[in-house]
Amino acid sequence: MTHSDTLDLSLELLRQPSVTPVDHNCQTIMADRLSKIGFNIENMRFDDVDNLWARRGTQSPVFCFAGHTDVVPTGNLDAWNSDPFLPEIRDGKLYGRGSADMKTALAAMVVASERFVNKYPDHKGSIAFLITSDEEGPSINGTVKVVETLEARNEKMTWCLVGEPSSTKVLGDVIKNGRRGSLNGVLKVQGQQGHVAYPHLAKNPIHEASQVITELCETVWDHGNEYFPATTFQISNIHAGTGATNVIPGTLEVTFNFRYSTEVTADILKSRVLEILDKHHLNYTIDWTLSGLPFLTPVGELVNAARDAIHETTGVETELSTSGGTSDGRFIAPTGAQVLELGVLNATIHQIDEHVNVAELEPLAEIYEKILIKLLA
Amino acid sequence: MTHSDTLDLSLELLRQPSVTPVDHNCQTIMADRLSKIGFNIENMRFDDVDNLWARRGTQSPVFCFAGHTDVVPTGNLDAWNSDPFLPEIRDGKLYGRGSADMKTALAAMVVASERFVNKYPDHKGSIAFLITSDEEGPSINGTVKVVETLEARNEKMTWCLVGEPSSTKVLGDVIKNGRRGSLNGVLKVQGQQGHVAYPHLAKNPIHEASQVITELCETVWDHGNEYFPATTFQISNIHAGTGATNVIPGTLEVTFNFRYSTEVTADILKSRVLEILDKHHLNYTIDWTLSGLPFLTPVGELVNAARDAIHETTGVETELSTSGGTSDGRFIAPTGAQVLELGVLNATIHQIDEHVNVAELEPLAEIYEKILIKLLA
Ligand SMILES: [Zn+2]
Ligand SMILES: [Zn+2]
Repeated sequence: MTHSDTLDLSLELLRQPSVTPVDHNCQTIMADRLSKIGFNIENMRFDDVDNLWARRGTQSPVFCFAGHTDVVPTGNLDAWNSDPFLPEIRDGKLYGRGSADMKTALAAMVVASERFVNKYPDHKGSIAFLITSDEEGPSINGTVKVVETLEARNEKMTWCLVGEPSSTKVLGDVIKNGRRGSLNGVLKVQGQQGHVAYPHLAKNPIHEASQVITELCETVWDHGNEYFPATTFQISNIHAGTGATNVIPGTLEVTFNFRYSTEVTADILKSRVLEILDKHHLNYTIDWTLSGLPFLTPVGELVNAARDAIHETTGVETELSTSGGTSDGRFIAPTGAQVLELGVLNATIHQIDEHVNVAELEPLAEIYEKILIKLLA
Repeated sequence: MTHSDTLDLSLELLRQPSVTPVDHNCQTIMADRLSKIGFNIENMRFDDVDNLWARRGTQSPVFCFAGHTDVVPTGNLDAWNSDPFLPEIRDGKLYGRGSADMKTALAAMVVASERFVNKYPDHKGSIAFLITSDEEGPSINGTVKVVETLEARNEKMTWCLVGEPSSTKVLGDVIKNGRRGSLNGVLKVQGQQGHVAYPHLAKNPIHEASQVITELCETVWDHGNEYFPATTFQISNIHAGTGATNVIPGTLEVTFNFRYSTEVTADILKSRVLEILDKHHLNYTIDWTLSGLPFLTPVGELVNAARDAIHETTGVETELSTSGGTSDGRFIAPTGAQVLELGVLNATIHQIDEHVNVAELEPLAEIYEKILIKLLA
């Protein structure tokens, strides 16, 4: 069997057991290939995280491929039909941890760059790679630190294509041109502990908070817009009580998360929550963590290049989406870069027997190459 | 300093470190005294629990003193101003674990019986003592087992005076002529686990249950009656979520307790809860535990004897109450006995530096003796 270039490089990367935050040589494998076609290589290690910043050219505009070499843990090994780090092709599918999220996309980026540079050695601007091994973990020493380093020396990206698996049914059917913001809150309601037989001497924080919780669950925060679905509120944790059945607990803790559109801001959400809490005269403290600002890349050069490249390669009409979880795009977008996510099908990411269709690997490399041609040829 | 009889016996009992379920000789001390005045002694040990059934006389009516020799643990010993098992008198107060709950009452019962028998050796009916060392613990091998044994041989109590500390401000100001029922429920609400970014693929059991919880908290279950305060509902525990802030939990668990009056029944409360749950179409399971039926001894011979004895001894007008936690009275009342709780002040029970006023010990013995006189002389 003759393997395609993209499949060969994918197999090499998939054989590296790079469970987050370990890179396990993946970035070196990529850097060796990029170095051969004229990329300048910078390894940026922060703490226990390997990051790669590679760039071919010194001029603007800068087109950057972004992604991560780390993968989530395998889960129960016995449940896998083949070793997650010995990639195997069965029935047209390539199985292995990271096959969908996102080592095949990394391979396609490298192969696309090689082919493009071969055809257009004197291309406009620059091509860059921003690769981390800390996307699946705390995301503290990865993309965010590389972006800080680049900002500090005023090195800008114009367009950034994140290779996260964006497709849902067929390759290229969905690209993400933004992400919702993510705001976490930890609400602690103070009551007065007591005995269930003497409720008049106690103040049950669960009872005190119950109307507030109902109101938070039922509030319509916005209606979304052309690019974003409506803002959602979800309680992830609620805890009160020591286990004793005759004690009224003294405190209640509620953890919640907003995924929010550009129709609101974190500050607006915070003040609306406080208004509801105060209306019910709760005695509370609240801690907020903003884990990602929303970002949006409206239709323009990058989106059009991607849509056209997909259509020319696969005939598929692409849908723009801002749904789903956060990605490292949230760290790159604030620099002013246009950011877009385009990769393979995401149906099996983070699961047992993660896989991709082998037949989609070469088309993905071709789409990436066509985007480079449209923007930098 | 000359000690009173009641104080002397109290000191002897308080020196026994009878932390539940250990009796540590207390019942033998009491039985030795009762045996000398003609009581027939039966030790009823069930598992690791000592129980004493002592009876003087074979006829009806039967007046029974009930109580417990076990005490709750001391808590932090360093926090006590004197050793909890080396009783000490300071400033007119007797300090020691069990001084209020309820070894001084046990001493007063014995002394009252001695004085009464001395004066009325041929009294009517019988005097009995039902003493356990398992009131502060699980209450499985204590009073409930003794009552079962007595019921099996058709041995009945007519009146039962439980020596639990019922007084609040001055000796005898409150006696308990009943207790509310106690019904526990564990509600498990089933949702569908998922990621907070994809709430449409999940079903958040906290959100599903929030209206139900509010409705349960706001429901008026009854208005109580002449003897009972209104039924109360309290949530003691609520738990959902694994700690992860991006996961919608799959289940919610809520533990609650009813303290209920004789205006409702456990079955009525259960069906009203189920009605609320079903109205909101929750997917749930619920487990019920009935930890005590309500009981009531209406005004009659026993209540009147106690009220009059208190008034004659202390001048205090007694208030009847059914509030507060459960007591072993709940096991005795179903046999048909009139049950009443009368003892010292309960302000420091189960606390560090538990104490009673020394000046209230002899009056308590006198009240107990007067009740015996009124009922059996
Ligand atoms: Zn990923
Ligand atoms: Zn007690």
